[in-house]
Amino acid sequence: LHKEHLTTVARQINLLKPAQLLKIFERLSHQRRAIVYRLLDKDLALRVFEGLSPVLQSDLVHALQEHDTTDLFNELAPDDRVWLLDELPATVASRLLRGLDDDEREETSTLLGYPADSIGRRMSPQFVTLRPWHTAAEGLDRVQRRLDTVESVYYLPVIDSGRRVVGAVSLRQLLGADDAQLVETLMEPTMTAEVSEDEEVVARRTARRGQFAVSIVDHEERLVGVFTLDDAVRILEFEESEDVSRQGGVEPLRRPYLSTPVSRLVRSRFTWLLVLAIGATLTVQVMAVFEETLEAVSVLALFVPLLIGIGGNTGNQAATTVTRALALDDIQPRDILRVFTRELRTGFMLGVALGALGFLIAWAFFALNVGVVIGLTLLAICTVAACVGGVMPTIASAIRVDPAVFSNPFISTFVDATGLIIYFVIARAILQI
Amino acid sequence: LHKEHLTTVARQINLLKPAQLLKIFERLSHQRRAIVYRLLDKDLALRVFEGLSPVLQSDLVHALQEHDTTDLFNELAPDDRVWLLDELPATVASRLLRGLDDDEREETSTLLGYPADSIGRRMSPQFVTLRPWHTAAEGLDRVQRRLDTVESVYYLPVIDSGRRVVGAVSLRQLLGADDAQLVETLMEPTMTAEVSEDEEVVARRTARRGQFAVSIVDHEERLVGVFTLDDAVRILEFEESEDVSRQGGVEPLRRPYLSTPVSRLVRSRFTWLLVLAIGATLTVQVMAVFEETLEAVSVLALFVPLLIGIGGNTGNQAATTVTRALALDDIQPRDILRVFTRELRTGFMLGVALGALGFLIAWAFFALNVGVVIGLTLLAICTVAACVGGVMPTIASAIRVDPAVFSNPFISTFVDATGLIIYFVIARAILQI
Repeated sequence: LHKEHLTTVARQINLLKPAQLLKIFERLSHQRRAIVYRLLDKDLALRVFEGLSPVLQSDLVHALQEHDTTDLFNELAPDDRVWLLDELPATVASRLLRGLDDDEREETSTLLGYPADSIGRRMSPQFVTLRPWHTAAEGLDRVQRRLDTVESVYYLPVIDSGRRVVGAVSLRQLLGADDAQLVETLMEPTMTAEVSEDEEVVARRTARRGQFAVSIVDHEERLVGVFTLDDAVRILEFEESEDVSRQGGVEPLRRPYLSTPVSRLVRSRFTWLLVLAIGATLTVQVMAVFEETLEAVSVLALFVPLLIGIGGNTGNQAATTVTRALALDDIQPRDILRVFTRELRTGFMLGVALGALGFLIAWAFFALNVGVVIGLTLLAICTVAACVGGVMPTIASAIRVDPAVFSNPFISTFVDATGLIIYFVIARAILQI
Repeated sequence: LHKEHLTTVARQINLLKPAQLLKIFERLSHQRRAIVYRLLDKDLALRVFEGLSPVLQSDLVHALQEHDTTDLFNELAPDDRVWLLDELPATVASRLLRGLDDDEREETSTLLGYPADSIGRRMSPQFVTLRPWHTAAEGLDRVQRRLDTVESVYYLPVIDSGRRVVGAVSLRQLLGADDAQLVETLMEPTMTAEVSEDEEVVARRTARRGQFAVSIVDHEERLVGVFTLDDAVRILEFEESEDVSRQGGVEPLRRPYLSTPVSRLVRSRFTWLLVLAIGATLTVQVMAVFEETLEAVSVLALFVPLLIGIGGNTGNQAATTVTRALALDDIQPRDILRVFTRELRTGFMLGVALGALGFLIAWAFFALNVGVVIGLTLLAICTVAACVGGVMPTIASAIRVDPAVFSNPFISTFVDATGLIIYFVIARAILQI
């Protein structure tokens, strides 16, 4: 990207479609992204900006001139604006808010008034409502009059005189009805969510049921906004990435991999790795306690990596399954006993199978009593690991901590230390050391 | 669920909304689900059936009477029918297909003709097309005439005389336009995907760009179907679950946790666990090779679980980040060199930090030379683990294997054995054993 090439680059990139440009922007490093962005024509620049994730938008806001960002900010929909504001430092955020005209500022401030992570921040405050006594023709007319200002027109909530949601009509139903047909006879029950509910929960429910949109109501069931499927998809992608990362013991990057600086990659991993490393010093202590046993029967040391490896894997498997079920709302924290008994049975069966195998192999290559120790240890470790792996995420969810925080590495480390104790206790008992 | 209670249950459940019933069905065991389902009124039963995932639908089909399922099958949309058929054994599938009327059967067979996992099986073959020379009024009229038979009416592809897609108009644009305005002046470029493309790739692209729908075309760019966002969401939820499971070393359950029999939980984990256990016997062999070293300096054994634990975690972190980036299409297999150098730098920096810490601790509690061994080993293990964790999923993706198959447990096991070798080689060199 030499200076003399910039005009050539500018000519070329302005021929591309927004989707292609987004792809390019997501692969560029931080500085280059801002340079290339400034080469775009104004309309194209706006479309690209709208398509970027809020984190990348915020990176750009930092890099651009003040008056450029004010314009961009004005063009965004209120809920997209809130996404971006959540990423910006307070001073920049309030400067941008001051740049809005009164109506827009009021709508945006209302959304900002809802608690962080609530669906209130993600809904659109612009929608068309119908009344039960409207005719289909009146309804269609209302839609047509607000076509330019409103974000979503395909889902039309029906409210009574107290602004309470009594149902919803789709634009499709309205088009298919006779002109004189009453909305009352057309409308169907609709999914609603309360404005303070967690964004992830509402997004999951919306996506699960294949709903095109849901009505968002306050605690007196009065309509305050509409939440659409495309926003649900955006939230879910974000949450999925967070869950997947945490389960692997990494803080979420929030940026595409190639446009994340290496220093940020290191930071996203270091804290967790340090916590796990400190946890792992437990295993050194356990090993030290049983040092005599190890020295007396040195063959025991050979199996240490195998046993804790299998224990860690069994724990991971259970944690993965249960964390996913919690994320999908397939189980609730109150199901903890059912989870425990299911994992106990699962772990025990896996332990019997692997224990039998381990017994045979250790017997064949070493001795009968070594075989018995390995077999029994595998049985015990698998059972314990599956229970721990299943129960820990459920407890986390009960105390409202992200279950994915009790990540696989975390469970491995915990199971490692426990597994070693089980191993040496069994070994001592059977080998009578 | 005693016989005498069934009538009471029947009365109660028929008062519930479909969404509540779905929640209940997803928590019931296999047999109970079929019993409760038969108690539902016909209309309600159909709505619940439509809302269930294809796997649960297929469970129900097995449990219900032949003529009941034929009715249900007729009511489904063509693409939903294909989802279900994919789950059923061939004999049941062909019986159900025979029960369809000619038009429906033809549409369904066309979809079934596309390769498994292609977007062709997931698109809707029913849509309304416009021509560039239509006026807005003509367009609206076309939509209204097909309102009852077509699945999606909000996205309207525009085709030329050769059925090639030249753009798309939204129902909203059509409503906002003057009656005489030509479609040509209204239409905008639209995202298209080829019918043989992978369903996950197209679903991800659709969701990413917040598109409401995309046009599906054949290899000559002629329109053959429309793929909508709600189906994209369904595919992505399914694929996410698959990725998350595989990364934890579990075969996907495909059913809600509580309605999966324990025997199936065991089966979903056993194969992987066995593969990993066999892999882990490698560590026993490595340990056996270095048995003399271990006996000579018994303090070395104490650090084995710690070192392989940290190595495994570093590998997991890299694999998690890179696998996610591959799933989101943030990186492609051809980026493998960039991934390698980034992970090399990241792993090295993490290794320097943890190695320094390990050196200090081991020096303080044991001896200087032990400290040097531990410090250098941590540096080497972190670097190698990050590289392996980053490169393996990329290679998998290049040879078109699901990167998540090189799951975290898989990488842990691999890194365990490598880490032990590194440890003992360094120890021998420095302690001069």
